Amino acid sequence: MSIESNIKYKKIKIDGNARLGQIHTQRGIINTPAFIPVGTNATVKAMNQDELKELGAEIILSNTYHLYLRPGHEVIKKLGGLHKFMNWQGPILTDSGGFQVFSLSPLRKITGDGVTFKSHLDGSTHFITPEIVMEIQGALGSDIAMAFDECTPYPATREYALNSLDLTTRWAKRCLDAKNENQALFGIVQGGTYTDLRKQSAQQLIELDFDGYALGGLSVGEPKGLMYEITNYTTLLLPEDKPRYLMGIGDLLDVLEAVSAGIDLFDCVMPTRNARNGTLFTSRGRISIKREEFKADSSPLDPDCGCYTCKNYSKAYLRHLFMNKEILSMRLNTFHNVYFYLEFFKKMRKAINSGTFDNFRKEQTVILQNNFNEG
Amino acid sequence: MSIESNIKYKKIKIDGNARLGQIHTQRGIINTPAFIPVGTNATVKAMNQDELKELGAEIILSNTYHLYLRPGHEVIKKLGGLHKFMNWQGPILTDSGGFQVFSLSPLRKITGDGVTFKSHLDGSTHFITPEIVMEIQGALGSDIAMAFDECTPYPATREYALNSLDLTTRWAKRCLDAKNENQALFGIVQGGTYTDLRKQSAQQLIELDFDGYALGGLSVGEPKGLMYEITNYTTLLLPEDKPRYLMGIGDLLDVLEAVSAGIDLFDCVMPTRNARNGTLFTSRGRISIKREEFKADSSPLDPDCGCYTCKNYSKAYLRHLFMNKEILSMRLNTFHNVYFYLEFFKKMRKAINSGTFDNFRKEQTVILQNNFNEG
Repeated sequence: MSIESNIKYKKIKIDGNARLGQIHTQRGIINTPAFIPVGTNATVKAMNQDELKELGAEIILSNTYHLYLRPGHEVIKKLGGLHKFMNWQGPILTDSGGFQVFSLSPLRKITGDGVTFKSHLDGSTHFITPEIVMEIQGALGSDIAMAFDECTPYPATREYALNSLDLTTRWAKRCLDAKNENQALFGIVQGGTYTDLRKQSAQQLIELDFDGYALGGLSVGEPKGLMYEITNYTTLLLPEDKPRYLMGIGDLLDVLEAVSAGIDLFDCVMPTRNARNGTLFTSRGRISIKREEFKADSSPLDPDCGCYTCKNYSKAYLRHLFMNKEILSMRLNTFHNVYFYLEFFKKMRKAINSGTFDNFRKEQTVILQNNFNEG
Repeated sequence: MSIESNIKYKKIKIDGNARLGQIHTQRGIINTPAFIPVGTNATVKAMNQDELKELGAEIILSNTYHLYLRPGHEVIKKLGGLHKFMNWQGPILTDSGGFQVFSLSPLRKITGDGVTFKSHLDGSTHFITPEIVMEIQGALGSDIAMAFDECTPYPATREYALNSLDLTTRWAKRCLDAKNENQALFGIVQGGTYTDLRKQSAQQLIELDFDGYALGGLSVGEPKGLMYEITNYTTLLLPEDKPRYLMGIGDLLDVLEAVSAGIDLFDCVMPTRNARNGTLFTSRGRISIKREEFKADSSPLDPDCGCYTCKNYSKAYLRHLFMNKEILSMRLNTFHNVYFYLEFFKKMRKAINSGTFDNFRKEQTVILQNNFNEG
């Protein structure tokens, strides 16, 4: 009945609950834990596709909501799909657009059947259903599609969270029924901050049998401790032979916690957005490149970093470009931050492989708490 | 008395008045006629320095006025000069800041000694003299410095133009007296649209003996015909054994005319600024990438172009990036336009070398007048 999955998860090593693995896809292997750079509009902001490849990105994310509105999924389909459109040969994951409908649209109305919303671009009215979301993702031709869900807000009453997860489960089933060939489909566990509801959601989705499972509705305003608790609790409920994806989370402190819990996939705009705002990650902690002290500093941003930016340009030059709002500032900063993230994930994988993830986590937690911005 | 020039012009071939030549500098050879990409703030907008090299740029321009205000020439000097600051090993030409003082400053007051002006960045008041301008350019360490001049506006009365050129000559002499070691210095011919004043200015500067000569005060609002007349007339007055530079002009129709007149060097923001505005140069004429007809156009921008943009991305993708104001749009467009300009100059040099420049000029004039933007 169900279409054979076009991806396969291989567990390589376990260290505590942390997992070293690989997701095999038709377009290449994704070594996990993996960071997925975010290319909302079919472009990871300020980078080109060759640079992403050069940096070792093994998968990127693109947004169903944005591409549906502009240029339109039919246009991309006509052009041979998203890979060809943006000239990226590696795997692509598309989110379902659910999160954007709820976070970007100035107006939305949910019925059992679907959602009516207004475009944040031109105010035009659109109606999407789980079936339409699958059609859009099919037209885009991503390697991994996400089921259409309602992202339960925080705080939410138990009643709201329960109704919301019921809706998500019903929509998940409809997505599965409309699944595209040659495309993996992940279900999204909701349930707010109620562990029993998370369990209920996970069980219902597992029964439906997806190619992978995501945790949704986290990092939406709840306290960190609660986020960690729900992540730890829910991840352990998920099947061991399928990828596990924590959506939209990329603060590296959270990543360390979630990898410890057994999460494999992460996406976040943090490295790219921070880069454009001048906040840069280094092996000694975060720094803001605009600080006056860097005005005549001829040293590289991070002496321990091997990226193009650190090998070729000084902090003084980076500061100068940032102060002048130069495009090259956004380019060099983004290149560095994405490099830093991908290296960080490599180091996590190495630590899991050598059974030292817990030490790595403790060590990095101290460094990541260094924030020279306020120093 | 005068410091030995650190550059040498070698004439290779003459075709009519068009010249094929080379400028030998300590940092490499510039094949002329040459296009100088503009890097106002020590960055050619949207490009990195390796890309400039990859595209074959043999010299770039940077702005004394901008770098004096931010980050300050003392900072750049402390960091080892402009080449080291921006990590560009090829020749750099710095303009004197004269043009920017007159075009960007909200307030300026000229005395015989120098100019008082207000910064367009923060309104702070500054006073610069020819000696200070030479000190700044010395601190930047450019290979070619420009004398401080007054850019005569259009229209200007004969009296204004005469007084202005007198001032420019007096300042030119003071710049020569303050000339830096290891730095060539070009004088700037003024005189407005009066041929006799252009002659007077040229003669006075030639007598002072500069390393090269520029035509200033053109493309400041005068009719094209008048600009061509003054360019043709003045260029013939300049020494044959020195480089000739037409400042700030880059419309390729004007370039063809000026190369015919014997001009060797050009700088202009046209390829880079147009790129950011979505206007792209192709072998068939200019096009605006935002046009609706490109929405689903899978063909490259220019099928005859070998640049990274044309080899990797479709018009549909370029249009999509432009409509979404993506940074990659500015990158890919800029890369293409600068490639186009540098290729155009290569073709001009080839045509001069084979004695067919006049044919090339006629042929290209027809193509350059194709503007599909309004088509």
